[in-house]
Amino acid sequence: MAQPLPVSPLALPLPALGPVRGVRLGAIAAGIRYKGRTDLVLAEFDPGTTVAGVFTRSKCPGAPVDWCRAILPAGRARALVVNAGNANVFTGRAGRETCEQTAQATAALTRCTADEVYLASTGVIGEILPAERITTALPALYDALSETGWEAAARGIMTTDTFPKAARRTAMLGGVKVTIQGMAKGSGMIAPDMATMLSFVATDAVLPAPLLQSMLSAGVKRTFNCITVDSDTSTSDMVLLFATGAAGNAPPASASADAPELADFRQALDSLLEELALMVIRDGEGATKLMTIDVTGAVSDESAWRVAMAIGNSPLVKTAIAGEDANWGRIVMAVGKCGEPADRDTLSVSIGGVCIAQNGTVRDGYDETPVVAHMKGQEISIAVDLGLGEGRARAWSCDLTHGYIDINGSYRS
Amino acid sequence: MAQPLPVSPLALPLPALGPVRGVRLGAIAAGIRYKGRTDLVLAEFDPGTTVAGVFTRSKCPGAPVDWCRAILPAGRARALVVNAGNANVFTGRAGRETCEQTAQATAALTRCTADEVYLASTGVIGEILPAERITTALPALYDALSETGWEAAARGIMTTDTFPKAARRTAMLGGVKVTIQGMAKGSGMIAPDMATMLSFVATDAVLPAPLLQSMLSAGVKRTFNCITVDSDTSTSDMVLLFATGAAGNAPPASASADAPELADFRQALDSLLEELALMVIRDGEGATKLMTIDVTGAVSDESAWRVAMAIGNSPLVKTAIAGEDANWGRIVMAVGKCGEPADRDTLSVSIGGVCIAQNGTVRDGYDETPVVAHMKGQEISIAVDLGLGEGRARAWSCDLTHGYIDINGSYRS
Repeated sequence: MAQPLPVSPLALPLPALGPVRGVRLGAIAAGIRYKGRTDLVLAEFDPGTTVAGVFTRSKCPGAPVDWCRAILPAGRARALVVNAGNANVFTGRAGRETCEQTAQATAALTRCTADEVYLASTGVIGEILPAERITTALPALYDALSETGWEAAARGIMTTDTFPKAARRTAMLGGVKVTIQGMAKGSGMIAPDMATMLSFVATDAVLPAPLLQSMLSAGVKRTFNCITVDSDTSTSDMVLLFATGAAGNAPPASASADAPELADFRQALDSLLEELALMVIRDGEGATKLMTIDVTGAVSDESAWRVAMAIGNSPLVKTAIAGEDANWGRIVMAVGKCGEPADRDTLSVSIGGVCIAQNGTVRDGYDETPVVAHMKGQEISIAVDLGLGEGRARAWSCDLTHGYIDINGSYRS
Repeated sequence: MAQPLPVSPLALPLPALGPVRGVRLGAIAAGIRYKGRTDLVLAEFDPGTTVAGVFTRSKCPGAPVDWCRAILPAGRARALVVNAGNANVFTGRAGRETCEQTAQATAALTRCTADEVYLASTGVIGEILPAERITTALPALYDALSETGWEAAARGIMTTDTFPKAARRTAMLGGVKVTIQGMAKGSGMIAPDMATMLSFVATDAVLPAPLLQSMLSAGVKRTFNCITVDSDTSTSDMVLLFATGAAGNAPPASASADAPELADFRQALDSLLEELALMVIRDGEGATKLMTIDVTGAVSDESAWRVAMAIGNSPLVKTAIAGEDANWGRIVMAVGKCGEPADRDTLSVSIGGVCIAQNGTVRDGYDETPVVAHMKGQEISIAVDLGLGEGRARAWSCDLTHGYIDINGSYRS
């Protein structure tokens, strides 16, 4: 971590942000690992805030993941504490104690109970995270919380992300205009051991926790769960969605996330989650190209997703993209290897909108010229039709370059 | 493919080879893709030769894989034809016709039927393989077959492997000394699209085909199926084992591969398969270090194998090895992500024989010094005990270096 990494060539400027009624937040330099930058973020939510969460499926999750999972069933949140630089993973009893002490100190400041305080950590695995570093910094951080602290917070949760990531949407809900705003960090794994994708989203809508959870789970499935940089799932991945209720809309009459009255909110939420997820791919370690993979004609959506992720995870596909090589044979290989139903003789493969191969062989008179031109761009589109059914999915990945090796092959210290 | 690749730093010299009674073979330059080198291999087997085979699980297999699968149930082989430079994959009807024409031409030369001719191809995916290139070259190749053609054959099946791969064993079977000898190529994917692992093994033992198949399947499961370079399974992988019967041993009385009378042969076969499989890893694209991964304490051997392969496939583990970084947190990550039963609090991780972490946290007083020294070597050993059961597995992988990107990111032409 000697030199700051150059900003990703795929970086986007931070969009215009604003307040979300019922949320005050800020960041401070607590000296957890980095010098000269903020690394501790606190958000305070109005009483009555509901919460939904989605967590890593890792069998070796970090202590903060365990903490959040345990308190989530109550569906209430008053505060969120996030630190960067130490993931508090594989830290045993000490890790659990750090969570408890952090939550208790935060609860005292925000006048709530510890089980209303959500925690997240990102950074090195296997090193003890001293609670004092956090609890000592919390009072000054609390005093400076503000409705306009979003950009500071988005920067404070970065590890070696090369740009801050946030997005904003509005939607109509129960006749009232509500706001949804969120931030994300990673998942570059941009410095060794910094293997974490975190995202925090807040809305001022009135939404009961079960409904919130249902919408978040569905949205994450189509967005964050459809991105890959290198197939290595973190121990600390987490997406939290808080609803403060400050907008004062009438609570939805339906308990179903599919209800028409929720359509506008859901669309805005999904769109925001997708924007954040794509920002993470745009900051993928060493990434120079963004790959969009559409799979259609699968036996199910789930099967299509697995095929799309197999293409997005294939080192050979990713190195071909890096080399601007329209190497469609590697896409065939990736489809073939992933174990999902596929039939060589009904498969078709397109790159950049040009159908290259179908019915088990290359198309008659295939002209590579427009595909070669497409490969030189920053955004690469791959489409595979399996010709078997109606299942479809879209996934996003990035190329695999020397930058990835440089970033991840260097020694931690 | 402009410049020949430098020989892998992990290369081994070709061991001493000799004849296998009942096998004559050779290689010729047929001009399929490469210039100035052999690229077509023919082996002829004595009448009565039995055969066993294991093939890629790809859903998009090459035409030669389909061909061999279709004729394998008869269990008889008289010839093997292998070409390098074109994989005959995703070539539709033309690919099937090339297989038929090659098999018929070979059958005419060797006075057998086409369904006793085994075929394998390795090289570019998606380009038509003209049968004439092969059938034109076959007569001269047939005339030059010899019992001592093994090294020529091992070189003739290389694509851009950086060294030829072969191994030899003897065993006692039915009171007779029998020989097992084999060759392999790849699986460096050392040039783009050259994504194939092929291995051909012959013995002079008398062994019925079902028994041969049973022993080969078991042996491959513990050897070739336990290696990974980059997780990308080829469309053309194939291991064939031929038994000519020329040794004249009494046929085994038992039909079970587990019979004690077969123990010596099985041990020799497994050892030979392991040697060949490790040669493939030693020629992994860009490899500078050989990684041996032992997983114990899993709920089953199958589960242990999945965990071992997840570690061996993890780009973050592989880049850490390349960087000589004893980054055990990434091993924890890989165990956690793979979906197999694991419990952070019973997990222990060792590198180079030094236990680093156990019971959910780093060991008290862990001294990294000997582990750092181990990481500087060419052979890295990783051991994970899951603490759950008796399941165990060993897998092998290599590091992920700039060489991999160089080799696979360059344009095909």
